[in-house]
Amino acid sequence: MKKHNFYAGPSRLSEYTLKATAEAIGNLAGSGLSIMGISHRSAEFKDVMDSSIEIVKELLQVPEGYSVLFLQGGGSMQFCMAPYNLLDKHATYVNTGIWAENAIKEAKLFGEVEVIASSEDKNFSYIPKNWEKNVNPQTSYVHITTNNTIVGTQYKSDPVVSVPLVSDMSSDLFSRPVDISKYALIYAGAQKNIGPAGVTLVIVKDELLGKVTREIPTMLQYKTHIDKGSMYNTPPTVAVYACLKTLERYRQLGGVEAMHERANIKAQMIYNEIDRNQMFVGTAEVSDRSNMNICFVMSENYKELESTFLEFIAARNILGVKGHRLVGGFRASSYNAQREESVKALVKAMKDFEKRYK
Amino acid sequence: MKKHNFYAGPSRLSEYTLKATAEAIGNLAGSGLSIMGISHRSAEFKDVMDSSIEIVKELLQVPEGYSVLFLQGGGSMQFCMAPYNLLDKHATYVNTGIWAENAIKEAKLFGEVEVIASSEDKNFSYIPKNWEKNVNPQTSYVHITTNNTIVGTQYKSDPVVSVPLVSDMSSDLFSRPVDISKYALIYAGAQKNIGPAGVTLVIVKDELLGKVTREIPTMLQYKTHIDKGSMYNTPPTVAVYACLKTLERYRQLGGVEAMHERANIKAQMIYNEIDRNQMFVGTAEVSDRSNMNICFVMSENYKELESTFLEFIAARNILGVKGHRLVGGFRASSYNAQREESVKALVKAMKDFEKRYK
Repeated sequence: MKKHNFYAGPSRLSEYTLKATAEAIGNLAGSGLSIMGISHRSAEFKDVMDSSIEIVKELLQVPEGYSVLFLQGGGSMQFCMAPYNLLDKHATYVNTGIWAENAIKEAKLFGEVEVIASSEDKNFSYIPKNWEKNVNPQTSYVHITTNNTIVGTQYKSDPVVSVPLVSDMSSDLFSRPVDISKYALIYAGAQKNIGPAGVTLVIVKDELLGKVTREIPTMLQYKTHIDKGSMYNTPPTVAVYACLKTLERYRQLGGVEAMHERANIKAQMIYNEIDRNQMFVGTAEVSDRSNMNICFVMSENYKELESTFLEFIAARNILGVKGHRLVGGFRASSYNAQREESVKALVKAMKDFEKRYK
Repeated sequence: MKKHNFYAGPSRLSEYTLKATAEAIGNLAGSGLSIMGISHRSAEFKDVMDSSIEIVKELLQVPEGYSVLFLQGGGSMQFCMAPYNLLDKHATYVNTGIWAENAIKEAKLFGEVEVIASSEDKNFSYIPKNWEKNVNPQTSYVHITTNNTIVGTQYKSDPVVSVPLVSDMSSDLFSRPVDISKYALIYAGAQKNIGPAGVTLVIVKDELLGKVTREIPTMLQYKTHIDKGSMYNTPPTVAVYACLKTLERYRQLGGVEAMHERANIKAQMIYNEIDRNQMFVGTAEVSDRSNMNICFVMSENYKELESTFLEFIAARNILGVKGHRLVGGFRASSYNAQREESVKALVKAMKDFEKRYK
């Protein structure tokens, strides 16, 4: 029985990734060894790591002067690694939700943190605008969260600032073209659009490192991993392999431009139904709606039907639409590997629910 | 063509683990979803994590008052996490090789470090003895490395100290019974005896935490992960699943006592041949020889045949016997999943090499 998987992450990966990874667990590239049981110093795995770094550079058109790293610990570890490496005395953060707040909390351990803009006044339902001109030119960096998984908002353009720009792109990297040259540091837990949980992609501008004077534990220094090509210590070999296969699939399908087009189409199908169907209401400001996480609630007159709706769609094998435990409501996540077939199944279920219960 | 895999890590995993993981990549526990694409908050994955923690407690007979954690970053991340959480003013380390040295280096960022004993004088070829009585009773902890993968030495008994004992057991946990109650903190990168690379097992005595006053980044606090049952942030779901399957296999085979017996037998077969065959010499002190990493070199008269031997065995599909790049020579790693068949193939190759070249 095929399931329609709308989980926010770890989220659905393509059949291509699943099949290739399962095969490599049996036999990696004809080596006679498993991707789970081969040395990371073997020629076979070295090739996996090199290819993974190369395909990131290719798909995102990473300019010279940037390093691509595969690390561990997820976005949450980057919340402390970024300030550990980059925050001299003062850093600037934009608060667009719970993940941004977590990033802010960690930065405060390393210096003064200025929250230059926040959408907390409206439950983080929008992306704050026009704060760029107020950035303190002495700040070490500005930190943003380009896609906010819990509240379903997304930046539609890159902020233009005169200081280094740091971004948590955990949930939208590879879903759209990004001008990497506008950023000093980009990080992303893999488990939405890149691969399975357990690996974190980091893209960092080399010249920004080495400017803070504090002592940094070896594993928390970006430079450690740059110098060793993400092989300072044993990398998460299976997870890196599955990322490589996921990114290969994007290349086959036309790269990040094609992903962006598909994401727009899929998200719009659900937003259209939310806007048409009087039983549901979208929670994010229309202009800031995320293509990745479509958040909505039952409208005022139907509040008591929330769990009924979840049961109704579960009976149709539609899973993972329950909103994040901190905000409730519904969230349909539609990352790159989401199938149009599943999106259509959800939209049909919303229409059928209306016929039955309105 | 079956390969004989002697890599030091990531090392061979059992067919049971590989088969179960490949299957779960297709369909986890009949959920219709992949272990690579299912939410860590799903009931199915919650069951995987709970079962993984439980089987560690069962196999190692972990006493009450200890927490079992599945983290990321490998042993190398623990080199800084341990002192971050436990080192007040002074810590004590025993230096038994390169990994111990790396642990010492990180600890120095957090306080005074006393190296109470070292085997550096003889290229780390032995385990220092009788240092226990010299431990400063005011020290926060004593840190040891129970098995030294690069030089092939292993503690044969637990040191008895009156202060908290911290141990890197990355390469021998689950290969022998351990009295957990003698330790304050045990950590182990999974990729030798526990599962694939990308997950780190930590066993920590709860009452030792919260005694240092420094501020610790959230992700680097053991308490963060204890409070959330290793689900503070997204865990490496596939790697945890493969650990569960690996540990289930140990239970089927008779637990850590059975693993110890098998490890003794396999290692002794190779050591016997090293001692019999005049072309080879073991590098570790006989009484401190590791069951996990059997290190040896060509004897004096045959030094120039080192690469010839590696080619000779490679032609027999025996892989991973080249010594660590920092010390050279040979290293045959024989963790729990090593097959007796492979050990016999190596021993036969050593005998045949003698017939051909001596």
